[in-house]
Amino acid sequence: MSANCIFCKIIKGQIPSHKLLETDLVYAFLDISPVSKGHVDHAQFLHQVPDESLAALLPAAKKIAAALGAENYNILQNNGRIAHQAVDHVHVHVIPKTETSGLGIVWPNTSPSQDELTRIATEIKDKVAHL
Amino acid sequence: MSANCIFCKIIKGQIPSHKLLETDLVYAFLDISPVSKGHVDHAQFLHQVPDESLAALLPAAKKIAAALGAENYNILQNNGRIAHQAVDHVHVHVIPKTETSGLGIVWPNTSPSQDELTRIATEIKDKVAHL
Repeated sequence: MSANCIFCKIIKGQIPSHKLLETDLVYAFLDISPVSKGHVDHAQFLHQVPDESLAALLPAAKKIAAALGAENYNILQNNGRIAHQAVDHVHVHVIPKTETSGLGIVWPNTSPSQDELTRIATEIKDKVAHL
Repeated sequence: MSANCIFCKIIKGQIPSHKLLETDLVYAFLDISPVSKGHVDHAQFLHQVPDESLAALLPAAKKIAAALGAENYNILQNNGRIAHQAVDHVHVHVIPKTETSGLGIVWPNTSPSQDELTRIATEIKDKVAHL
């Protein structure tokens, strides 16, 4: 837990929230904006979170999505300010989508060559193998 | 597996891909567009996937993110055509973000009243409890 993190304060009950679901590893609540969120012990980025905690997030998001009954929805987890992370505590958004509401996405299509893809894949695979 | 699903074909090796990581539950490969993706047995929507498979996705995405070494990135999983799902096989995008590239997001801020939030939260909680 971090003393200055608004999500840690919500999880500890120091700031009120509209709680939807709570387990040892997940705390889901209604965003005041609104969307819903999962939680883990304080960490800013996904890559800092233990696998056990990460493993609990999507099953919880699934429950929220099922409860929402949305036909279309986005699961979004942002890392870093320029990637639209507004609160520096790892969280997952479950965002129902309709024709007129929900997340707007601008998709970053690029068209690298097969050679370039091979080079990039080899580089990433090598790094994954040495993690 | 689904005979007509392009991602199932990739996982079976019937269509080539730039594979990054493979386990019993996850197959990550370079998007030709590109972004990277995880996989699970054929299902179109997150809410149709067994928890065991869902649990494997974010730890795999974490590995890819760590290997990419991106300071900022988005984890995105789309459900349904209007929510930008282009291939009807559950997959997770790991998308590095820089000031000039990556996912563009239009955030759906709304401002419901506390009463409205309480009503919505009560409704969702009730549904979660009966799943």
